[in-house]
Amino acid sequence: MAAASTPNTTPKIFTGPRGYVLEDVPHLSDYIENLPTYPNPLQDNPAYSVVKQYFVHQDDTVPQKVVVHKDGPRGTHFRRGGPRQKVYFESDEVHACIVTCGGLCPGLNTVIREIVCGLYHMYGVKKILGIDEIRRRGLKVVVAGIPKTIDNDIPVIDKSFGFDTAVEEAQRAINAAHVEAESIENGIGVVKLMARYSGFIAMYATLASRDVDCCLIPESPFYLEGPGGLFEFIEKRLKENGHMVIVIAEGAGQELVSESMDSMTDASGNKLLRDVALWISQRIKDHFAKERKIPINLKYIDPTYMIRAVPSNASDNVYCTLLAQSAVHGAMAGYTGFTCGLVNSKLAYIPFNRIIEKQRKVVITDRMWARLLSSTNQPSFLRARARY
Amino acid sequence: MAAASTPNTTPKIFTGPRGYVLEDVPHLSDYIENLPTYPNPLQDNPAYSVVKQYFVHQDDTVPQKVVVHKDGPRGTHFRRGGPRQKVYFESDEVHACIVTCGGLCPGLNTVIREIVCGLYHMYGVKKILGIDEIRRRGLKVVVAGIPKTIDNDIPVIDKSFGFDTAVEEAQRAINAAHVEAESIENGIGVVKLMARYSGFIAMYATLASRDVDCCLIPESPFYLEGPGGLFEFIEKRLKENGHMVIVIAEGAGQELVSESMDSMTDASGNKLLRDVALWISQRIKDHFAKERKIPINLKYIDPTYMIRAVPSNASDNVYCTLLAQSAVHGAMAGYTGFTCGLVNSKLAYIPFNRIIEKQRKVVITDRMWARLLSSTNQPSFLRARARY
Amino acid sequence: MAAASTPNTTPKIFTGPRGYVLEDVPHLSDYIENLPTYPNPLQDNPAYSVVKQYFVHQDDTVPQKVVVHKDGPRGTHFRRGGPRQKVYFESDEVHACIVTCGGLCPGLNTVIREIVCGLYHMYGVKKILGIDEIRRRGLKVVVAGIPKTIDNDIPVIDKSFGFDTAVEEAQRAINAAHVEAESIENGIGVVKLMARYSGFIAMYATLASRDVDCCLIPESPFYLEGPGGLFEFIEKRLKENGHMVIVIAEGAGQELVSESMDSMTDASGNKLLRDVALWISQRIKDHFAKERKIPINLKYIDPTYMIRAVPSNASDNVYCTLLAQSAVHGAMAGYTGFTCGLVNSKLAYIPFNRIIEKQRKVVITDRMWARLLSSTNQPSFLRARARY
Amino acid sequence: MAAASTPNTTPKIFTGPRGYVLEDVPHLSDYIENLPTYPNPLQDNPAYSVVKQYFVHQDDTVPQKVVVHKDGPRGTHFRRGGPRQKVYFESDEVHACIVTCGGLCPGLNTVIREIVCGLYHMYGVKKILGIDEIRRRGLKVVVAGIPKTIDNDIPVIDKSFGFDTAVEEAQRAINAAHVEAESIENGIGVVKLMARYSGFIAMYATLASRDVDCCLIPESPFYLEGPGGLFEFIEKRLKENGHMVIVIAEGAGQELVSESMDSMTDASGNKLLRDVALWISQRIKDHFAKERKIPINLKYIDPTYMIRAVPSNASDNVYCTLLAQSAVHGAMAGYTGFTCGLVNSKLAYIPFNRIIEKQRKVVITDRMWARLLSSTNQPSFLRARARY
Repeated sequence: MAAASTPNTTPKIFTGPRGYVLEDVPHLSDYIENLPTYPNPLQDNPAYSVVKQYFVHQDDTVPQKVVVHKDGPRGTHFRRGGPRQKVYFESDEVHACIVTCGGLCPGLNTVIREIVCGLYHMYGVKKILGIDEIRRRGLKVVVAGIPKTIDNDIPVIDKSFGFDTAVEEAQRAINAAHVEAESIENGIGVVKLMARYSGFIAMYATLASRDVDCCLIPESPFYLEGPGGLFEFIEKRLKENGHMVIVIAEGAGQELVSESMDSMTDASGNKLLRDVALWISQRIKDHFAKERKIPINLKYIDPTYMIRAVPSNASDNVYCTLLAQSAVHGAMAGYTGFTCGLVNSKLAYIPFNRIIEKQRKVVITDRMWARLLSSTNQPSFLRARARY
Repeated sequence: MAAASTPNTTPKIFTGPRGYVLEDVPHLSDYIENLPTYPNPLQDNPAYSVVKQYFVHQDDTVPQKVVVHKDGPRGTHFRRGGPRQKVYFESDEVHACIVTCGGLCPGLNTVIREIVCGLYHMYGVKKILGIDEIRRRGLKVVVAGIPKTIDNDIPVIDKSFGFDTAVEEAQRAINAAHVEAESIENGIGVVKLMARYSGFIAMYATLASRDVDCCLIPESPFYLEGPGGLFEFIEKRLKENGHMVIVIAEGAGQELVSESMDSMTDASGNKLLRDVALWISQRIKDHFAKERKIPINLKYIDPTYMIRAVPSNASDNVYCTLLAQSAVHGAMAGYTGFTCGLVNSKLAYIPFNRIIEKQRKVVITDRMWARLLSSTNQPSFLRARARY
Repeated sequence: MAAASTPNTTPKIFTGPRGYVLEDVPHLSDYIENLPTYPNPLQDNPAYSVVKQYFVHQDDTVPQKVVVHKDGPRGTHFRRGGPRQKVYFESDEVHACIVTCGGLCPGLNTVIREIVCGLYHMYGVKKILGIDEIRRRGLKVVVAGIPKTIDNDIPVIDKSFGFDTAVEEAQRAINAAHVEAESIENGIGVVKLMARYSGFIAMYATLASRDVDCCLIPESPFYLEGPGGLFEFIEKRLKENGHMVIVIAEGAGQELVSESMDSMTDASGNKLLRDVALWISQRIKDHFAKERKIPINLKYIDPTYMIRAVPSNASDNVYCTLLAQSAVHGAMAGYTGFTCGLVNSKLAYIPFNRIIEKQRKVVITDRMWARLLSSTNQPSFLRARARY
Repeated sequence: MAAASTPNTTPKIFTGPRGYVLEDVPHLSDYIENLPTYPNPLQDNPAYSVVKQYFVHQDDTVPQKVVVHKDGPRGTHFRRGGPRQKVYFESDEVHACIVTCGGLCPGLNTVIREIVCGLYHMYGVKKILGIDEIRRRGLKVVVAGIPKTIDNDIPVIDKSFGFDTAVEEAQRAINAAHVEAESIENGIGVVKLMARYSGFIAMYATLASRDVDCCLIPESPFYLEGPGGLFEFIEKRLKENGHMVIVIAEGAGQELVSESMDSMTDASGNKLLRDVALWISQRIKDHFAKERKIPINLKYIDPTYMIRAVPSNASDNVYCTLLAQSAVHGAMAGYTGFTCGLVNSKLAYIPFNRIIEKQRKVVITDRMWARLLSSTNQPSFLRARARY
């Protein structure tokens, strides 16, 4: 369900009054002339018989930015997701293929099931394949995407499916780390959370659990030694509370590791070099054992695979249903090269290029990160920021 | 934290170009002249030192409606929540009082803790009271609300806190009902879910769990006997699958009970009359035992108090933090008579009158309800709709 | 898997030195002469190749009573469960039938799966049927039972499968009741737990959770009014703590309800009359509202079906495996009319008559019940005991 | 609460008819003459007023071995745990100290709370200290132990507290490993479970979950390469099922690592050398990547700290209560140098020397291990056994 690129696609941009911009998604009719259309079979579906104006109006759009000023410009909009009055396929002729890429993510099964159910029950499509590769050759093929990433690192959309579930399960690991750390003198619980480039899971799990003393994410540089560094903060916190909990996102502090790489033996210790959380844990141990001669007890928890494998929770289940049905509606209506997602809580179709042009990251000059800093009281590592 | 009414308040409405409307909240300066202001102490808080433009711009507003047309009017907006550059209280002079009303709700403790932490850590307010009544007499008192209702029946805002957690726990009861029903011939699992007037928990729990065959909510009238009625549907579903699961929201079908009230003994059976889910369960048993002579096995589950008492999940924890901090920011900035909430995923201040003027209800002519009908394949009870 | 009676069976009793008694189970060879035997196929199973003395010695027995005195008599023993050197069936000729009776119980699926796996993998038996009735007619039929009761009301054996899981889930309901009761003035959380005649689930759930103030079980009579009664205790505890939690086993206080039955309207209020926990809850409300004029807030939780439907926990899973394999071994070895169970932590075969002759009940003059009384500090209701 | 050794203690052995042996625990009166005794205050405790014969008879003992033959010898017995008619301390004079050693274990808090509650409520003891060291000097000091080990590696007793909870939580990790492994071609889920010398957690978690293909424990030697080795088995299982789950106890295969130690770089990779599960995972990866050129996907899960930190489940809570009360009763009755534990499901006092003389280990020639082999169908590694 990953976003595949549609080559040769120039963005479809429409403008309107007062700075209104619609970044539209491609449509079959852009490429093929005189396509026949058919009435949407939903209109005969008893489940939808009570719905007024069930079909999305063709002009419905959703703004990307919803904090607005009285006299401000209207900005970018996306096409609203949902069923259309006319579809571009007859149910019998549809061959649907579902492709998934990459690792596990809570909700993945729900998405697949809901695509199958949606095609079958809503549109009477019976030829559905799951395939481990996809090839695009012919005519009248639409490509609809649902971004699958537990890391929530997709731009534009409110959040990726499975994220809520991942944060929930991450909180369990933080609780365990807290219990471990509290149970022993100078106990330090270190929890490694997934996210190579975007620290959303670490940030939200830290905010959800009030037990974290320090949260390190890829977006926020930090350093270990010297004034204002991590070691100093750890010593201070241990002195105050006798224990502490540190959350380290997978990709945090990669630059620190690269720097010190030369001094590390290569042998089969490769893993250590790339696993920053493990590397930092070892550095903390060394620092307090050798330089400070302070006995500490560090417990390292890596819940990655337990987070990925957990069944999706209720709110992700509903979200997956909305995404899957929305993808089906858009595809049947002839849209292509689009991704479904919630934009300011409304389903929208977003052109692939907007999704893949960059990764969404935690903006550390935003208030959400300030809320976290205020909750943990961890150092701001300003010296590190100055460098990067 | 319930919304209290502020008497004598006329709505503050401002308009702008192209149909822009701001439904603003009252402010201390509307009532009291020449109030001094102070710089927001957050500007010296190290946690916020890295945030650019931390303070909300005074003109920031959030639209109520985000499905828009290129040429459509802009509609109602609310003031954006968040910290302001100037505050109307000195930290030392603030006496904060926290009042809660009504029953338990997951996340309530988190909200209270976060208000206390927010006042203390962000604004240095140390005089905070929790009180079981509130009286307003004097000057310079602001009233900020955070709606506490597990039922999600508050208009305007995206959802009320604790709702996600409630749906999650409701799903556990549905799973149990499904296991029970499946384990026996003609097994019927009935789950009663809270919600006197708004069936959101029932609707979302049904959507989240694919195991429900029929979901009855207060907003959607239904009837038991005759063609297209519940009894007929139950018999059909039992014939097809051998078992079924029915979710009944607390307030569903009240009108049916009123009708049949005369024929019921009053004695100590009062409870039965008001508890529709129990009443329907009894009617189902009677119908199949006496009229249809079909042996059924009905199991009735009422998870109400287990749902209310469950600790809030991670996503509700973060939401509670945002609501609490937002209420604190608004109050310190002198706004009053307002409720905090997410509006299209952005924090906003909403005047009390917009929150209390009516209850939010499931709109059964909307697509979410159609999704549910499509998922359960339950009857549309159109005959009942015709009557009401 | 319920214990079926084997007609015409006179108990097989053997005696030995110093008061040793073996209450043996019937064997095919008691009824049929000259039965051929076969080597146990397990001896060629690679999984068992490393086991020394894998087969149970034919003289192995397990004592019913393990608190012994130096010079005391040895008492009753049962035949030890487990595989025998010789079996009385060829794998090919075996038709295995699995019958279950009654309601759900955590672990039931595990037992069935393990019987099937055990027959198939250990003995190569491939003809296995599940049937809702059983008829015994012919020759060479063995009947092996595994008692299925969530209530733990089976004599002789240590505990019935699913019991641990049930107590675990019951604790969740007690926690919810405690949270509810604590959250409001004079809050009373009432938890109804299954068990018509034996209060084991209520007793163990109360002991496992330190939050229960009063536990009422069928075995321990009590009364509501007057000195030393339940109402007095509730008032005292509310005065001290402001809230309380009461656990009521399904069958507790049936005699109270019978007494008051005449004064109750029959109509459709039947349910109330038989549901003691609901009836007591109503009586408590009435007493405090009408006679004491003390406002109380009673929350009633019935987790019965959520307890029954929960998947079995790890310790029950292992127990179910042992029971299932043990039943298979015994049946293949020609024993019949027996039930498997742990007796003082060892698997034993117990004749049906010992299992069905009476129900196991909580002995309220034993130390376990005293431990509970000491934990709750509830009244001893001695006046009630005097009467019954 | 760990077992401390009592120096100068010669075992107290008593014998009786037919091979009866009592391995008794030391008593204060063995060391000090003419000690006064007092009536047990429990006799005036209302909670115990209904108990008949509440006090344990002075001759009550519990056999270590309960599989017996009609004519066999009676064997070793231990003194039964529980309250005695006479105690050797006045409540006012008692100073109770609670010492814990070592890491976290589910149930530890319950044990401590129950000792405190037991001393206070049952015996009126109010002077209770928790201390991180203990020194024994004087007179009239009793030492009672409750073995704290999550590994269940204590001889004589049925199981150590926290073990059930640990197995339950270990099962969650196995489930996650199974989901991960199943989701990808040639997926291998590796779960490391605690236990340096005794593989009970690994064995029971494997038995409780039917999803494990191979369980490696310290007691059962194995080897990686060649016919009958682990690599061959992995390849076979991947070919058959496309995925597999391996459980590795912490201390399994230490001898393999020692052998290969010379060829490993020392640097900071120390951890890798000692962490067998990680080392085996790396060897598996290398083998399939380099020698077999078969792409595999190995996911490594180490749930150790999440298992240790989980709250004890209901059955452990009750067990902890029994152990704590039993320790209190024994100490008040003047016994010393003893450990409490369930022996064949009865509480008994066991002399320290029996607990510390050796570790309890999985007996791989017993039926429980055969059950596991039969469940996983893993190789018997007989070549390895031949060597050790």
